[in-house]
Amino acid sequence: MAQISTCPPLIRESVIEAHELIKDHVHYTPVMTNRTLNRLASTPRESALAGDRKPANSTMRLHFKCENLQRIGAFKARGAFHAIERLKQEPGWIEDGGKEKGVVGFSAGNHAQALALAAQENGILAHIVMPSNTRPNKIEATKGYGANVVICQPGEREAVAARIVADKGARLIPPYDHPDVILGQGTIGLELQDQVPPLDAIIAGCSGGGMLSGIALSCEGTRVKVFGAEPEFEGADDGRRGYYSGERVTQVKTRTIADGLIGVVGERPWDIIYKRKLVSGMYAVSEDEIREATKLVLERLKLWIEPSSAVPLAVALFNEEFRTMVEKTAGGKGWDLGLVLSGGNISVDGLVQLFS
Amino acid sequence: MAQISTCPPLIRESVIEAHELIKDHVHYTPVMTNRTLNRLASTPRESALAGDRKPANSTMRLHFKCENLQRIGAFKARGAFHAIERLKQEPGWIEDGGKEKGVVGFSAGNHAQALALAAQENGILAHIVMPSNTRPNKIEATKGYGANVVICQPGEREAVAARIVADKGARLIPPYDHPDVILGQGTIGLELQDQVPPLDAIIAGCSGGGMLSGIALSCEGTRVKVFGAEPEFEGADDGRRGYYSGERVTQVKTRTIADGLIGVVGERPWDIIYKRKLVSGMYAVSEDEIREATKLVLERLKLWIEPSSAVPLAVALFNEEFRTMVEKTAGGKGWDLGLVLSGGNISVDGLVQLFS
Repeated sequence: MAQISTCPPLIRESVIEAHELIKDHVHYTPVMTNRTLNRLASTPRESALAGDRKPANSTMRLHFKCENLQRIGAFKARGAFHAIERLKQEPGWIEDGGKEKGVVGFSAGNHAQALALAAQENGILAHIVMPSNTRPNKIEATKGYGANVVICQPGEREAVAARIVADKGARLIPPYDHPDVILGQGTIGLELQDQVPPLDAIIAGCSGGGMLSGIALSCEGTRVKVFGAEPEFEGADDGRRGYYSGERVTQVKTRTIADGLIGVVGERPWDIIYKRKLVSGMYAVSEDEIREATKLVLERLKLWIEPSSAVPLAVALFNEEFRTMVEKTAGGKGWDLGLVLSGGNISVDGLVQLFS
Repeated sequence: MAQISTCPPLIRESVIEAHELIKDHVHYTPVMTNRTLNRLASTPRESALAGDRKPANSTMRLHFKCENLQRIGAFKARGAFHAIERLKQEPGWIEDGGKEKGVVGFSAGNHAQALALAAQENGILAHIVMPSNTRPNKIEATKGYGANVVICQPGEREAVAARIVADKGARLIPPYDHPDVILGQGTIGLELQDQVPPLDAIIAGCSGGGMLSGIALSCEGTRVKVFGAEPEFEGADDGRRGYYSGERVTQVKTRTIADGLIGVVGERPWDIIYKRKLVSGMYAVSEDEIREATKLVLERLKLWIEPSSAVPLAVALFNEEFRTMVEKTAGGKGWDLGLVLSGGNISVDGLVQLFS
């Protein structure tokens, strides 16, 4: 990664600059809408939980940002390409043999492929550290982008990555807790603001918080509110719990089906989300709600997504707190709500298992 | 349907006129591409069947026309809206109470929903005859568009529809064997020619042949060749067999997984496809090949499709006759090939069953 001292400040203007840097390398993904889902989102429903409460009658027009159609099938391409572009701009990095020394990433998921691709297209060596329990197809895909894949014991990936940095002089590109990565992911929010005028709010999944905090930066000073969505299973809603208790949760172990949203919020994202209050609220949903929302996206939007992508929709349809808040805030005219479909990297076998 | 005598001639110019009539009512669907699928299509492969034949090394750049993202989730919306628009133009039809007498369709599938929607948006009563073995979700969806659904014994739907025509003075809108329907479906081909310059060829599925013949009309007099794709299981390749024997096959009974491609080619489509030779060739693929191509579209293109949609891709990837023909015809520079993803109306349960 570029030296922290040389990184641009974490403000909206820097997200705009990031977009200029990456726009020729990543897809400007489409936004999709669907009448049936709008109707479902706007119909009062009986809440299974709130027997004595009137279900919220929120009017929402849903706008789905299709990052499942992004390069490598997930939004992670944005942060990876931005980190690489910024590294290339760092004075002396290329001259000192930076491209040959390479970059290092650790990931069992989409960041691995994203970094491998961004490095390959720039003629940069990529070392990708992957735990031994990574799914074989993800390892193959990462190798397919020309990366040097290093398999390690689960739990040791950061240490192994640090050793490669020390041994080879390679630069670490972390998956979310870095300004360049945050700013790159934030470009999703800029595009949504362009594609859906007038947009009232955006809701996005929260894992390490790189995407959510980046989108929040992209909306700072605008009228667009930003919300986070998480699974609640086995405490996966670490971001929500931290947000409302005032203390960042630093450890979680969960087997939620939304396996892209397992991580805990990193320090820099936490500053943006909680301390600067650029995120207006955090909401969580159950495994059944995520499964139902996934089904709706598959069958109605006709888009292939991993379950993590459906978590924002599950909040919009099933979380009564969120719906009540929209009802109160939006009034009669309702909201135009952007929802990020963050990725589509699930195999047919994985989907069959999910619904069997 | 409009009286046959008042229908426009079956030529390219009429497809252009049809597009003008329907373009405000249906989606101009996107075209998607994918590097991995291009690579697969262009790599020589060992054919399981042709042990002694050199596998074809065809270069194909694939352009997927996303009719799964069309209204009601399938291309059938085009023909239905065109038939309704043309009916409205027929002198005296509205004045004679045509909208109240209504239209009649028979279908267990996408035509039912398409006609119900087109009628509803025009304030026209729609009677939809559906066999009693139609999947309940399709019946519900059709009712959801305000149609009067009439359930009948399987095999009796044409007779029941004819009785409604006689009793109520309603007009029949057949699923494929009518000029207005053919011209409406043909607009897919026009859009592909606009979206992919320079396009060399289009391959589309063939059931009743309305879409295939319409696309063929849209390419008449241009340099774009048109091909048909079918499942071969239990004789489902009636179009291919008829095309090469010179005699239209009029009956087929098959349980292919590509259940949108079960019908036999109608008379008018046959004239266009075979007699006028506007289709340059017909190709068939196995159930396993269709399943594999479906998986590739889901996992790689990230699009939700019914198996019928994957049949053209299965031909491009796995049919050695097709690949050899492309290799010979295209030469070194290869082909830009349009493939129609005809629909996305399969439930999650249906997909799970397909891959379990």
